[in-house]
Amino acid sequence: MWNYQGYQNGPYNLYCYYVGYNPPTSVNPYPRFPSIDRSAFLSPFTFVVGDVTIQNNTYVGPFVSIRADEGTPFFIGSNSNLQDGVILHGLKNKYFEKNSRKYSIYIGDRVSCAHGALVHGPCRVDDDVFIGFKAIVYNAIIGAGSFISSGAVVTNGVEIAPNSFVPPGANIDTQEKANNLATVPNTEEEFAKAVQQVNQEFPAAYSLYFGKTKCSCGLAC
Amino acid sequence: MWNYQGYQNGPYNLYCYYVGYNPPTSVNPYPRFPSIDRSAFLSPFTFVVGDVTIQNNTYVGPFVSIRADEGTPFFIGSNSNLQDGVILHGLKNKYFEKNSRKYSIYIGDRVSCAHGALVHGPCRVDDDVFIGFKAIVYNAIIGAGSFISSGAVVTNGVEIAPNSFVPPGANIDTQEKANNLATVPNTEEEFAKAVQQVNQEFPAAYSLYFGKTKCSCGLAC
Amino acid sequence: MWNYQGYQNGPYNLYCYYVGYNPPTSVNPYPRFPSIDRSAFLSPFTFVVGDVTIQNNTYVGPFVSIRADEGTPFFIGSNSNLQDGVILHGLKNKYFEKNSRKYSIYIGDRVSCAHGALVHGPCRVDDDVFIGFKAIVYNAIIGAGSFISSGAVVTNGVEIAPNSFVPPGANIDTQEKANNLATVPNTEEEFAKAVQQVNQEFPAAYSLYFGKTKCSCGLAC
Repeated sequence: MWNYQGYQNGPYNLYCYYVGYNPPTSVNPYPRFPSIDRSAFLSPFTFVVGDVTIQNNTYVGPFVSIRADEGTPFFIGSNSNLQDGVILHGLKNKYFEKNSRKYSIYIGDRVSCAHGALVHGPCRVDDDVFIGFKAIVYNAIIGAGSFISSGAVVTNGVEIAPNSFVPPGANIDTQEKANNLATVPNTEEEFAKAVQQVNQEFPAAYSLYFGKTKCSCGLAC
Repeated sequence: MWNYQGYQNGPYNLYCYYVGYNPPTSVNPYPRFPSIDRSAFLSPFTFVVGDVTIQNNTYVGPFVSIRADEGTPFFIGSNSNLQDGVILHGLKNKYFEKNSRKYSIYIGDRVSCAHGALVHGPCRVDDDVFIGFKAIVYNAIIGAGSFISSGAVVTNGVEIAPNSFVPPGANIDTQEKANNLATVPNTEEEFAKAVQQVNQEFPAAYSLYFGKTKCSCGLAC
Repeated sequence: MWNYQGYQNGPYNLYCYYVGYNPPTSVNPYPRFPSIDRSAFLSPFTFVVGDVTIQNNTYVGPFVSIRADEGTPFFIGSNSNLQDGVILHGLKNKYFEKNSRKYSIYIGDRVSCAHGALVHGPCRVDDDVFIGFKAIVYNAIIGAGSFISSGAVVTNGVEIAPNSFVPPGANIDTQEKANNLATVPNTEEEFAKAVQQVNQEFPAAYSLYFGKTKCSCGLAC
């Protein structure tokens, strides 16, 4: 059994992400650079361009694309997580408001976007929302504390009330369907909290490994 | 608030893609190198191997895999776009014809493959088709101007007539289902055109940022 | 027509993956490094962290994340393949047993995980299983030789008997549904074998291209 450890510091194991300006187009003539809190963490193989704010202690997993080159701006609050393969992109000139400001994508605090979720603007995802595996949220407002299960779709301009539960694979594409959602069951609520707990540890833990922050232990980390 | 701008030219922010030969196997003993038009754009973190043609002004987003190491060749026309996370791969020795030539994957001009779509050969996607979020097209012919909505599947050797509309989440796996599709509604037709318009600006705009093309402004870009 | 060949050895075409320790957290205080057999192959743009074993001749495609930073350990047997965009991750402190050992994710020999599949621990996938495009396997035991079709979901702690066939898009979330599955049809069984045949050639073929193994031909490869 051989392992790749010998290569860890070599050219084959670069910690490589891309963070850059949106390219100027007729839609967005002005290039903007992301503003990312020092305590957030970008994994290897992430892509972030344009007017994107990422606040403190948010974790961004591998193969995540945050591409504010059409719909813009994007905002991602504190203690949120975008897990492996999550994609954020937005349609041009479409917005939802939050705190009297217009966003292509607004994601609040303590939001979990699980593996493979697609969050497409215009959309607004309030605090403490859980978005499940491979779910699609596009042209929708998701009230605080809601739980979108795996493979579900929420779209067509619907607004989901706080603490709503969207079942696995559901297609919520009318306001009537949105209005008839049950509230989040206890098991899902606890699950979402457990996911938050784990993911909130990642930014600091991973950052230590990549030398972005200094350890208080006195050693060079 | 700290941002990553200081790192932009550093080793952490490489513009890094992989373009290479298909590896020789019993199925494809001869390695071929992709042929990519100079005006096409490959984003950071794209992977392209084998006998792949990409024509002018086509945009390839981050985390796109175009892997012609089994089914081959692949052709992608002009002014098309493969958005974040799109995957192109094909089964060995299975083909559809276009212009009297056999392709594992043929994608025409002005085709949009939205975020997370999977286009798996053998398949043929004619001009002006829109393929929605996370849709799967595999072993199918998609007539020009058709619109495949989010999460839909088209498979089992069906042929979709030009200008057909596949609804969200539909599973078109028999020719009978394919024959009963409605034509594309005006709203979707306009949507597909707007997506084209935005994406056709990206290759030149992004290329300027990465120094591949020269700007006519006289400055070193 | 211009191609990228001139760049192949340049800084733009690095063979770049990330293999590293899981970061220490309250869940997993001890960092572990993956153990990957020399004859396995990691494509450009793969991410592997933590207590992950990958055995001989297994192929890992581009944009695959094997992230044992929460649920752990992961085991992947011989001659398996994780195709483009596959994600492996696990919930903390949840396990299934195999050979009297506990795993967050156990994947046996000759298992195919097709493009975009999500395998989320706790789960156990026995030998010769085929997992289709964009399928989700999470909190489940999949008996040897089973075939999970495209877009299907298997979850909620169900155990699938050996040689079971899960139809396209099926949602197997109760043991009753699992018990009523038919056996794998001949066409799917042959398909799964053909996929194995192709993918088992990839590790050696790709490795030659990347100089990881030495060719017996006597030339420097």
